[in-house]
Amino acid sequence: MSAVCTGIAHTLAVHVYYEDTDAAGMVYHANYLKFAERGRSEMLRSLGFGHRRLGSEDGVGFAVRRCSIDYLAPARLEDALTVDTTLEGVGAATLQVHQQIRRDGELLADLDILVACVGHDGRPRRLPSALRAALVEPRAP
Amino acid sequence: MSAVCTGIAHTLAVHVYYEDTDAAGMVYHANYLKFAERGRSEMLRSLGFGHRRLGSEDGVGFAVRRCSIDYLAPARLEDALTVDTTLEGVGAATLQVHQQIRRDGELLADLDILVACVGHDGRPRRLPSALRAALVEPRAP
Amino acid sequence: MSAVCTGIAHTLAVHVYYEDTDAAGMVYHANYLKFAERGRSEMLRSLGFGHRRLGSEDGVGFAVRRCSIDYLAPARLEDALTVDTTLEGVGAATLQVHQQIRRDGELLADLDILVACVGHDGRPRRLPSALRAALVEPRAP
Amino acid sequence: MSAVCTGIAHTLAVHVYYEDTDAAGMVYHANYLKFAERGRSEMLRSLGFGHRRLGSEDGVGFAVRRCSIDYLAPARLEDALTVDTTLEGVGAATLQVHQQIRRDGELLADLDILVACVGHDGRPRRLPSALRAALVEPRAP
Repeated sequence: MSAVCTGIAHTLAVHVYYEDTDAAGMVYHANYLKFAERGRSEMLRSLGFGHRRLGSEDGVGFAVRRCSIDYLAPARLEDALTVDTTLEGVGAATLQVHQQIRRDGELLADLDILVACVGHDGRPRRLPSALRAALVEPRAP
Repeated sequence: MSAVCTGIAHTLAVHVYYEDTDAAGMVYHANYLKFAERGRSEMLRSLGFGHRRLGSEDGVGFAVRRCSIDYLAPARLEDALTVDTTLEGVGAATLQVHQQIRRDGELLADLDILVACVGHDGRPRRLPSALRAALVEPRAP
Repeated sequence: MSAVCTGIAHTLAVHVYYEDTDAAGMVYHANYLKFAERGRSEMLRSLGFGHRRLGSEDGVGFAVRRCSIDYLAPARLEDALTVDTTLEGVGAATLQVHQQIRRDGELLADLDILVACVGHDGRPRRLPSALRAALVEPRAP
Repeated sequence: MSAVCTGIAHTLAVHVYYEDTDAAGMVYHANYLKFAERGRSEMLRSLGFGHRRLGSEDGVGFAVRRCSIDYLAPARLEDALTVDTTLEGVGAATLQVHQQIRRDGELLADLDILVACVGHDGRPRRLPSALRAALVEPRAP
């Protein structure tokens, strides 16, 4: 990916409900991916690019291409978590995102996620230019 | 609903995994609805009317309109469950379904579900005639 | 249930993410139950009775015993919903709750839920007296 | 991890239901982790080490420590998938697992998962010796 570093970051608060936990008494491992996706969606939405706008105006969406997660400590029922999302790179048709899920500052899960911009047919598409500008703009002097 | 009683019934085996449970150590209450939906989907599929066929050939799908559930006993991790699905009525644009989720014969959850046939726009649609015939046919002498 | 009417009500904001939707483009029907459970949990928590406190101090939790839902209109991706939770009755070991899920005031789903207070063994238990007082107190002159 | 290679492998059939999909019309990315966990659970169960036995007899369970996934092609509603699970290494307190999710032979998702054996307190525990024997035994001449 011909990445362009950006300074874009976002923090989302997430509360843990019964639906997120499993019989081991902790948050089920796959559900951290849900929390992370909420964080990415809110980051884009805070820039004015909600999924519905992207879908209707630009005919694109995002699909996860690669994901790696380190689970460092478990989250539990009623925990108040934060999802820190940092945009680490912007390619022609991809975004590289680093996400950290914390409880009171303690790092619980660390995720590196590559998402691809795709058309309604699922095929790769270049990032819409307005989105690209919004993502890269912060580096302008 | 101008119901027509039918003799259509179907049984599906479901295994309980971690994803289905919550921190109380039991199957999370909303997940019985997932098990039930699997049962209805398999009942229709066993008659030759999978969702993809219904969507592409007839342009319809099913949406749950009303649901009532009695939770009688909890299911737990690794339980082997059965979902018994009985078609209780066929209306012009609806199906009334009774479903029972059991473990070793013990009734854990009892569901009455009304599903509506809808078009891609979400509006009510009459049942496709081929589906209707397949559902009502068994009563023919 | 020897119900005691109360004036306790609570409203929770819920945002719809991809995780909540299904291939029909709407919120998957079982997920309204998750939204409702978040609302009940926050109502109890706002009164000082989070699940962790109830579990550790009183050795009890809540299990859904009966649930009926009317689905009136579908919620969609990125919808901003509200979950209105009204406590309609307090029995010796149960709570009767009415919940309504809305988008911009439009009623999307209407739920009646009976939850039972249970011990760690899953058996019915009387409501902890402090919780009972907090729930019934508002009616005191 | 002082890994010991083993020849243990397992294949599980998984059917895609509405609950697994999202508004993009495909299986939601986090749900491949659920399919994979079903595969690992069934692999252990086929060797006689279901989670309930491990929890009650040995006081241990498994927690995912690290996970990386490549998403190569999307699964869709009603797809019949297979989850191929290969045990790639057995450490003192960990298992390294490779999993591939396919449809008609086509690779959709490729996962590398490190799971740790933990006690009820969530702390690392050595693998129960009977489990260890069952996992390593196949290499015996």
